[in-house]
Amino acid sequence: MAKINRNFTKLPGSYLFSETARRAAAFAAKNPGKKIIKLGIGDATQPLAPSVIKAMHDAVDDMAAKETFKGYGPDFGYDFLIDAIAKNDYAARGVDIGIDEIFVSDGAKSDCGNIGEIFSVDNRVAVCDPVYPVYVDSNAMAGRAGDFGADGRWSNLIYMPCTAENGFAPELPSEVPDIIYLCFPNNPTGAAATKEQLKMWVDYAAKNGSVILYDSAYEAYITDPEIPHTIFEIEGAKECAIEFRSFSKTAGFTGTRCAYTVVPKALVREGVQLNSLWARRQSTKFNGTPYIVQRGAAAIYTEQGKIECRKIIDYYMNNAKVIREGLIKAGLEVFGGVNAPYIWAKTPNGMPSWDFFDMLLNKVNVVTTPGAGFGPSGEGYIRLTAFGDSEATKEAVERIIKLL
Amino acid sequence: MAKINRNFTKLPGSYLFSETARRAAAFAAKNPGKKIIKLGIGDATQPLAPSVIKAMHDAVDDMAAKETFKGYGPDFGYDFLIDAIAKNDYAARGVDIGIDEIFVSDGAKSDCGNIGEIFSVDNRVAVCDPVYPVYVDSNAMAGRAGDFGADGRWSNLIYMPCTAENGFAPELPSEVPDIIYLCFPNNPTGAAATKEQLKMWVDYAAKNGSVILYDSAYEAYITDPEIPHTIFEIEGAKECAIEFRSFSKTAGFTGTRCAYTVVPKALVREGVQLNSLWARRQSTKFNGTPYIVQRGAAAIYTEQGKIECRKIIDYYMNNAKVIREGLIKAGLEVFGGVNAPYIWAKTPNGMPSWDFFDMLLNKVNVVTTPGAGFGPSGEGYIRLTAFGDSEATKEAVERIIKLL
Repeated sequence: MAKINRNFTKLPGSYLFSETARRAAAFAAKNPGKKIIKLGIGDATQPLAPSVIKAMHDAVDDMAAKETFKGYGPDFGYDFLIDAIAKNDYAARGVDIGIDEIFVSDGAKSDCGNIGEIFSVDNRVAVCDPVYPVYVDSNAMAGRAGDFGADGRWSNLIYMPCTAENGFAPELPSEVPDIIYLCFPNNPTGAAATKEQLKMWVDYAAKNGSVILYDSAYEAYITDPEIPHTIFEIEGAKECAIEFRSFSKTAGFTGTRCAYTVVPKALVREGVQLNSLWARRQSTKFNGTPYIVQRGAAAIYTEQGKIECRKIIDYYMNNAKVIREGLIKAGLEVFGGVNAPYIWAKTPNGMPSWDFFDMLLNKVNVVTTPGAGFGPSGEGYIRLTAFGDSEATKEAVERIIKLL
Repeated sequence: MAKINRNFTKLPGSYLFSETARRAAAFAAKNPGKKIIKLGIGDATQPLAPSVIKAMHDAVDDMAAKETFKGYGPDFGYDFLIDAIAKNDYAARGVDIGIDEIFVSDGAKSDCGNIGEIFSVDNRVAVCDPVYPVYVDSNAMAGRAGDFGADGRWSNLIYMPCTAENGFAPELPSEVPDIIYLCFPNNPTGAAATKEQLKMWVDYAAKNGSVILYDSAYEAYITDPEIPHTIFEIEGAKECAIEFRSFSKTAGFTGTRCAYTVVPKALVREGVQLNSLWARRQSTKFNGTPYIVQRGAAAIYTEQGKIECRKIIDYYMNNAKVIREGLIKAGLEVFGGVNAPYIWAKTPNGMPSWDFFDMLLNKVNVVTTPGAGFGPSGEGYIRLTAFGDSEATKEAVERIIKLL
């Protein structure tokens, strides 16, 4: 008799964004006349950059002729993309990352979820609270999280609260974790980490042999020149960190799907290079990112592509400003939105997150994400994203101001 | 101190196709003047169908305008593609598969590799021998395979030999497995399964509560009208089987990346629908297949797309005939190549597979795949694929005839 992975049955409810989408769809079905504005999921709304479009058209044409047709690509991505990544995202910042340390994939969500496979089930895992649910759920599925308690916490995870009180900067945990998930600029709080803060984590991981899983998917939204864009700007990080990057937010690739993960060869545990483990995982259970998509991603790194993508990011960051200032005007306590496309706001009068989510959905037809969905310390907050249309974003903010 | 997944360190050598590619590249580097013909990896070489190209150009244009831009798609694929799959691949064969039983993904390799996550590590797994390495390696990584022995067998896997003696049809194992991997038309042997043979497996799984993981990636190559294209043509299969399908070979999508997996809702173990487990796995650790690619895949199901794809398949199956007849002429004992794009041949005089692989590479510059790479019972065989260019395939076959 086949036995299921019972860890799955411990997961409470559905994946956060499936649940918010379900509630929004149910409201829409009951209220066909209402104009719903979605500032919930962090999903691009602006068209791809013209350089990306051109590169993908050319790549589609490549697939139409025998001489230029592409079958299976290199397991970890085409050189033309990996070279551009190494040069622009690392060498240009004074960081030397080898081309065999970069693994192109279909998404940072996949990589963040799958990376756990190269680690033993026995590792103790630390996560920020609130946190991107994939880190927690994927560890729960693997059996590293223990049991889900009535307090909304997994029994075997180490939670690092990030609240207004500590400026959304996690403190070193009292119990030493083996694996530490960090995400800066942060999803969902919008907080960025300074060089000093990251150095504290790298030193801590080095001392304890921990591995930092660093999600840098939002680095393109950093505006402060002092904030590091990659953890590898910190000395010693190559010996203790893996970095996840995505084109989803950098270039609007949420529906186009391309990302990459950096596993330095200097990262060794129990005498084994984690780079070789990830290479084996990916070559065995993944068959590469579409050629057409990789061509599109490479176009982001051309001079023209950079200008075009910057324009899109500026557009979104203007939305962030509108939301930030509007919510302050509405009387809410507001965080983020300066070095990140996320605005994290306290609910009025300590209202529970899901209640405020439902209130905004039902009363002003604005979809947000309840902070509690990101973990216990997210209770009493909601997240809004800057990825909407600018007119719709303005309207949503005005509706909220009027309501509150 | 972070601990690695030590199951990875039990894996012998590298992934099979990485190793054959490495040897071919090393030979090419040393012999720059030689024209190497690759009949090793099952990789498409013919351009995508014009209907697919047109659909992808249109989809790229959709991404260029705000009104038609697509961000995150539905977790499990767009309705336009899922509907086409349900209608053409199932309803047209009298099989009723619901749209919520179909999960679109980036590849059958990913799905075959990741499906293990929904099962307990404790399951006993049966595989055909020889076998597509992903089934074995992914189970080894998960800790289900035990230890790799000097005899080339994993201590905890149940091997079902498929040899010339049993017509490459696995027999029911003496020890009852919980999970059974079957692949028909078979990779690597090219054998197809009759309705009666599949019924034997479905009845066996039903009786024992086993789950069949059925890889049907090559169904488009079936020429015999009596051979089932899907395991769900067999009564009772919905209660015991998951089916993997791919556009890689059906429509040359090896570098374009699209596939799907069918998990019937009737498949229940320990009181849980496996459909809900896979839905949870995919929504947590995968973010969908590119919109552009899904549009291309949907075009395969148009009337014109079907005609064009059939033409490509016929082209490859003509190669299969050329290889099959040529190798017979060369004096080899040959199997497959009738309902499958793979030709499975006995090496001359019982020569070891890797020796024959090296001999063909070094003497006539033809890349094949050594049968031993697919498992112990593959020793003494090599696999050739029909996916080459037709002229190059003819030349390769002539070179082999001349050599032998």
